[in-house]
Amino acid sequence: MAYRETQQVLDRKQARHQSLLRSAEALVRDGGFAALTMQAVANSSGMAVGTVYRYFPNKEALAAAVFQSATEREVAAVEEALGRRAPPAERLADAVRNFAERAFAAPEFAWALIAEPVDSSVDRARLRYRQRYTELFAAVIDEGVRAGQFVSRYPSFAAAALVGAMAESLLGPLKHPEQPQLLIAELESLCLRALGHSKLD
Amino acid sequence: MAYRETQQVLDRKQARHQSLLRSAEALVRDGGFAALTMQAVANSSGMAVGTVYRYFPNKEALAAAVFQSATEREVAAVEEALGRRAPPAERLADAVRNFAERAFAAPEFAWALIAEPVDSSVDRARLRYRQRYTELFAAVIDEGVRAGQFVSRYPSFAAAALVGAMAESLLGPLKHPEQPQLLIAELESLCLRALGHSKLD
Repeated sequence: MAYRETQQVLDRKQARHQSLLRSAEALVRDGGFAALTMQAVANSSGMAVGTVYRYFPNKEALAAAVFQSATEREVAAVEEALGRRAPPAERLADAVRNFAERAFAAPEFAWALIAEPVDSSVDRARLRYRQRYTELFAAVIDEGVRAGQFVSRYPSFAAAALVGAMAESLLGPLKHPEQPQLLIAELESLCLRALGHSKLD
Repeated sequence: MAYRETQQVLDRKQARHQSLLRSAEALVRDGGFAALTMQAVANSSGMAVGTVYRYFPNKEALAAAVFQSATEREVAAVEEALGRRAPPAERLADAVRNFAERAFAAPEFAWALIAEPVDSSVDRARLRYRQRYTELFAAVIDEGVRAGQFVSRYPSFAAAALVGAMAESLLGPLKHPEQPQLLIAELESLCLRALGHSKLD
């Protein structure tokens, strides 16, 4: 009986945590991290602001949690594209396209995740996640080099370059999205060319 | 007479401002922005901490000032390399090499300027400066496209990609600098290839 109650309490806590995180993410989707305050999360989730503080010690922790849960989904999407059964160049192009398409599907949110000035805890999380992207791309570049599809003496270095190129090139267009499909194709070609592989247009 | 005194006061203020900024930059060069405090600047410049506050309202303003004056020099170096009389591809390669060589000459400081999590005022300044780099590179890419040296339908987009690639690829190596000349050559090749131009090795 005691065990059951404990499980119930844990479940309820878990559900509340998720609910608060969803409310917080919705605020950031609408107005960037600038719109994220403990009070706004309380209002939109119908909880007392004290409850919000019980789950997240401060706004910085909440912002970092929103960043991490959203970016985790993006990393998973890239990981999936890179993990398919296909030649390395094709998988790399898929991952680049996928990343950019997902960004353009929610341009303001993507901009907030990639570049909005927030605070040092989000910046630290950004460094960690760019490192994760870099490791994923490094593996497929390494494979491509062995398969003779790519030219790169330092796959990790080239991977970091691609990750930086993907993030930075999208910042302007995400603010003013026009003809995203053309830019996505351009980004794909640019990344493949950087690795010494010509895309068959 | 009144005018002269005013000029003297202005000169002294200017000199103090420069002296504080130099002390602050020296602290960041040694220990990153984490080492920058109002007290530490007061100590190393031999001034009272109250004096530091008269010139910089808070640590954030001081960090932003250090970032800006140091980055201004880096932008000027890139601008100079891009402005030489030479074919666009050669100037672009020079600018990339120059940027990377300068970074490896002071790797910890470069890492702090490019990526150390500080606060949102430094992040905002970073966005502005990456935009300036992007405009400089966009002009030479555009010129290179017209001259038939580069392939790019969207020079500004490609320029932002290069700026992102340069910054991100150097982050790991700046933390553990090994054989920087090889990586600099790799970055140069990668950028030229991305623009559809093969470097003559």
